[in-house]
Amino acid sequence: MDKSQYNFEEFNTLFYPKHISMIGASENSKFGSMLYLSAFKNSKWADTFYPVNPKYDKILDWKCYDSVLDIPYPVDTAYISLKIDVIPKVLKECVQKDIPWVIIFASGFSETGDEEGKQIEKELKKIIEGSNTRVIGPNCLGPYNAETGMKFSFTSPIGTPGPVSFMSQSGGHLTQLVDIGVKRDLRFRYGVSFGNQIDLNCLDFLKHFHHDPGTKVIAAYLESFGSADGHDFFNELKETTKKKPVIIWKGGYTSDGSRAAFSHTGAIASDFKLWEAMIKQTGATLVKDNEEFWNTIKTFEILFPKYIPKGRRAGIITPGGGNSVNMTDLFADNNLEVPHLSKESQEKLAEILPKENVNVKNPIDLGAYGFVVDVFIKCIKIVVKDPNIDIIVIPLWPHHLFNYVFKRMIKIQKGTSKPFLFCLPSIADSFELAKKFNLARKILNKNRQLYFLSLRDAANSMALFCDYIDYLKSRNIQIQTD
Amino acid sequence: MDKSQYNFEEFNTLFYPKHISMIGASENSKFGSMLYLSAFKNSKWADTFYPVNPKYDKILDWKCYDSVLDIPYPVDTAYISLKIDVIPKVLKECVQKDIPWVIIFASGFSETGDEEGKQIEKELKKIIEGSNTRVIGPNCLGPYNAETGMKFSFTSPIGTPGPVSFMSQSGGHLTQLVDIGVKRDLRFRYGVSFGNQIDLNCLDFLKHFHHDPGTKVIAAYLESFGSADGHDFFNELKETTKKKPVIIWKGGYTSDGSRAAFSHTGAIASDFKLWEAMIKQTGATLVKDNEEFWNTIKTFEILFPKYIPKGRRAGIITPGGGNSVNMTDLFADNNLEVPHLSKESQEKLAEILPKENVNVKNPIDLGAYGFVVDVFIKCIKIVVKDPNIDIIVIPLWPHHLFNYVFKRMIKIQKGTSKPFLFCLPSIADSFELAKKFNLARKILNKNRQLYFLSLRDAANSMALFCDYIDYLKSRNIQIQTD
Repeated sequence: MDKSQYNFEEFNTLFYPKHISMIGASENSKFGSMLYLSAFKNSKWADTFYPVNPKYDKILDWKCYDSVLDIPYPVDTAYISLKIDVIPKVLKECVQKDIPWVIIFASGFSETGDEEGKQIEKELKKIIEGSNTRVIGPNCLGPYNAETGMKFSFTSPIGTPGPVSFMSQSGGHLTQLVDIGVKRDLRFRYGVSFGNQIDLNCLDFLKHFHHDPGTKVIAAYLESFGSADGHDFFNELKETTKKKPVIIWKGGYTSDGSRAAFSHTGAIASDFKLWEAMIKQTGATLVKDNEEFWNTIKTFEILFPKYIPKGRRAGIITPGGGNSVNMTDLFADNNLEVPHLSKESQEKLAEILPKENVNVKNPIDLGAYGFVVDVFIKCIKIVVKDPNIDIIVIPLWPHHLFNYVFKRMIKIQKGTSKPFLFCLPSIADSFELAKKFNLARKILNKNRQLYFLSLRDAANSMALFCDYIDYLKSRNIQIQTD
Repeated sequence: MDKSQYNFEEFNTLFYPKHISMIGASENSKFGSMLYLSAFKNSKWADTFYPVNPKYDKILDWKCYDSVLDIPYPVDTAYISLKIDVIPKVLKECVQKDIPWVIIFASGFSETGDEEGKQIEKELKKIIEGSNTRVIGPNCLGPYNAETGMKFSFTSPIGTPGPVSFMSQSGGHLTQLVDIGVKRDLRFRYGVSFGNQIDLNCLDFLKHFHHDPGTKVIAAYLESFGSADGHDFFNELKETTKKKPVIIWKGGYTSDGSRAAFSHTGAIASDFKLWEAMIKQTGATLVKDNEEFWNTIKTFEILFPKYIPKGRRAGIITPGGGNSVNMTDLFADNNLEVPHLSKESQEKLAEILPKENVNVKNPIDLGAYGFVVDVFIKCIKIVVKDPNIDIIVIPLWPHHLFNYVFKRMIKIQKGTSKPFLFCLPSIADSFELAKKFNLARKILNKNRQLYFLSLRDAANSMALFCDYIDYLKSRNIQIQTD
């Protein structure tokens, strides 16, 4: 396979393998791999999974082979779970068997800072040179496919498949993202964790996700470019964002963090300002921590390309003056606007609400009437129709977490193309509230509603979405709304 | 009472009233006041509570009076819950009866922007001029006392009393703070919501809390100075922070937010840069949203003055490379440091941990061994003793939320004066996790441990605490550690 001329269809056997081998499989491993093994035993790959380990004849009732060369079938992907010094030998055998995808779990390479690890990385690269074998890792968990349930991550179930494809230099972040995805109904397609990126890298997967019709949103956790060329990545990114958003979490953006990233994936410190400039110039979206990453992916997944706001003008509807001020500050501080409603809307609201302890201009403070569902619903309807408003923001209180309240609010949402944001603050502290919220969450997820557990996250993620839309507009790029 | 020469002891009858009157009491009110009434019926004030309303003879079995002047007892505090146009008449009667504290609930004054409301505010000020009566509000909930359980907020129970006194221009924020306080075991002493501050204001309460020996931490939500003089507030703040921290949440810090604040409490727009400068120069702590407010209060409450870090150097101990990088970025981005451990500590850690997939320098990435409790505990002990480390940060995973794990970690915490931060990310999404966390929370609260539900909040609040300590050091101010 010529590395410069990618055949993207070939990635199919990575994300949809039939024959999988695990080299170094053992029932006695303390961490991780034993869990993977039993997961595969109960999967669709149960009959096409081939453990390799010269120490055993059988593993979990599978026949165990001494070497991949003994497996009497073709192998699509081979996972290597071995100490690093024996990996070169094993990789050579994979090349000999023409295995296209080799995933190296093991750590202990360049990220240790030791000469030995660096040398072995070089050796591995040399082994696959000119061959039909490509390496993912080392120091990674490899591919993930939400549709088939294929994954080498051991904590999370698989959620509903969807349009988000992601790549992560960190296996832990991949696992956490999948876990959060299941809980928040964030819907994935493909994923990959690639660790030290000695061969296949962020550019390869960006290209793949760019051209993959099933991927609508791309998310990446990156500490470095790995074996990719930064300039090539820049160019690919610029083309990709014309069709679909790319959200990049750059790990190690501080100098202490950059040191930590080196110990993690051998990531060589690169100037964060360069990353910032690249991301800005290409219209990609930059995030800087876990919550921001998860919330922003969710926002893009739900809104793109169906709910494109005309502008950055938010209408905030909530009971409580202090809360109104807080929300307005947070939205305005995140480069969104909270403008006055049209005179017409203000008059309509004034007809419904009392004169005292409310605000009909925007933020719409419903005062105590915010707890009267009929009034709340009527007010939302007025704000949705207002020509001065592009985005509807509804901070909810414990009093609103009822099925019949949501049903009415969601009905309004379904009738508009303006983005709707539900905000449910401070739920984590209270078990009683978490219980109540658990029911509400099911309704929200089922109806694919965008909700946040922090007002600040709501404002921030919405602003990042508006930034992307503004970028497209500034380049006269039309969004295909299917 | 001479307003310029405050007798602070007089505030006692505000926070510890015996005789309370409610003017405009009614069993038929739709919102709020009816709930207050029944709460008082079951309180220690049941026999010294006097409803006033000429429409009724009896309310909830209390005798109801036509006017405060008919009450045959002295009255310490009178709450007025009436339409604004009849308030002047009623306030005159309060003055005539020498009632020291009058709390005006009603809204509809200067915050409406209408001339009528402004005029009535002026009239009210005139009525109390030179009298023995002081007004709190209008547009407020008035005083709160965690020790006696006195409050006019209707959602929250009262938690364990403690050292935090707070003032809030918003009644909603007061209620929310008390609610959060109960859930997070944040311990309060006094509180007050004072709305439009036409008479008693933020300066009066700052002075009171400053000189109150039971108050160790002061928190304030402010949209404006109200009737206080900004310069006087500045001077008082500067003196106060020499003895105790003052955390100020300035509502309406954006221009859209400032408009919202006007509609809320009639707060006149003031330049946020001036507030920022004032807060910085006085050593007070500035926060800008609800979560930041709650987390920072909790941090100061738990740490001050017992756990004063020597510097800003954090030791982060966690399983997971990606997570290590994330935490390090967040701490470093918040102006804290994540320095290398001493060579000695690194060697000790290397003896315990494997060579691969870990980091013994700091952040300490335990790899898969982070899930082995004995190893985790040993590593924490080493980091606590390291001379390069001032602050201990422990991001916990669902696997750690067990009684026996906490018990061991808490034991280490009790043996050091270095601040300990437990971080429990992303609990809100999962009901199962919330259930598990509910037990963990009880242990953490009982042991007065500092924990966060967001890594970012942990870093931010800790940095604000270090900022205050640095301010004191830069002024050579000694902290009295009791």
